[in-house]
Amino acid sequence: MKLYDLELSGNCYKVRLFCALTGIDIELIPVDFLAGAHKQSPVIDLNPWGELPVLDDGKVVLRDSQAILVYLANKYEKTQWWPKDPAEQGEIVQWLSVASNEIQNGPCAARLVDKFGMALNKERTIEVSDRILPLVNAHLENNDWLALNRPTIADCAVFPYIGTAWEGGVDISGYTAIVNWIARIKELPGYTSMPGV
Amino acid sequence: MKLYDLELSGNCYKVRLFCALTGIDIELIPVDFLAGAHKQSPVIDLNPWGELPVLDDGKVVLRDSQAILVYLANKYEKTQWWPKDPAEQGEIVQWLSVASNEIQNGPCAARLVDKFGMALNKERTIEVSDRILPLVNAHLENNDWLALNRPTIADCAVFPYIGTAWEGGVDISGYTAIVNWIARIKELPGYTSMPGV
Repeated sequence: MKLYDLELSGNCYKVRLFCALTGIDIELIPVDFLAGAHKQSPVIDLNPWGELPVLDDGKVVLRDSQAILVYLANKYEKTQWWPKDPAEQGEIVQWLSVASNEIQNGPCAARLVDKFGMALNKERTIEVSDRILPLVNAHLENNDWLALNRPTIADCAVFPYIGTAWEGGVDISGYTAIVNWIARIKELPGYTSMPGV
Repeated sequence: MKLYDLELSGNCYKVRLFCALTGIDIELIPVDFLAGAHKQSPVIDLNPWGELPVLDDGKVVLRDSQAILVYLANKYEKTQWWPKDPAEQGEIVQWLSVASNEIQNGPCAARLVDKFGMALNKERTIEVSDRILPLVNAHLENNDWLALNRPTIADCAVFPYIGTAWEGGVDISGYTAIVNWIARIKELPGYTSMPGV
């Protein structure tokens, strides 16, 4: 099982982190993103969207980090991280949507501007961050984890771009509940980091 | 089971459509959005994020349309629409992420500007639409449905804001595969529409 991977990508880190925390063995295939290797064979053949990560598990090929988390947790029966109960799945999917949308277009996009020089509207990335981070913080004031009172794939999906938010000029130090949640994640058995976290 | 609902919201329509297609009985509670009722009791107590839809199923309260689709399909064992197989769930979640992110920030946001006067960057909404719609169209050139070669919650999540894209000045008439897919959706037994579709 191969993960086409970029070390500096928080989306790739979501998968690396989950695999580390759950002991899933995955072969990392580094992709030379700056040279555009994600838009060339073999990556573009596996994912015509030209994005990383891409999971290649033989007959199963998946783009999108949230989809990969669901697939892996389900395949390896990590029901602590992705249960089968309807209400519990619903609770987690709420956070997968936040990871896909607000976190991606807030702190992640701010970092893409500052760290990688992408031509996005920086002001908008800060607006989105300023809306979503207080909501996440308020939730974490009453909950140790994003969903189900335990670590789940919701935490793996939301954490990477909050943990690297400072690289986009987004200061999270005032969000005490988020800061404490990050500390809890870093103490989980098997935890692995990425540059910038 | 109550859905706090706004008729003109595509996110609410995702849930109404799924319930209509699968025969799930749900009580619609219209929310006076223009009067700000989503930011007042009882809605804000159920969803501090101040967004619609909100599902109130007694002990289970969910925001986020994707999460509600997963919950309902799972609760009512609509495994045609949300199966239990890891690879199949992964394939669908790819599209739930697209619905949360690119569709929301592309055609949905363009409509929010044109139809509701929201102060978003219209140019950016068109850029996002111009990137995502060709990818969706290319996928549908080789597939009748977004995932699993059959209707799933992926179609329910992605369709509403593509079906109303013209209200944001996004012209989809050149995307033949998308146009044909919309026609297929409209022919599904139980199909229900929304204003603008």
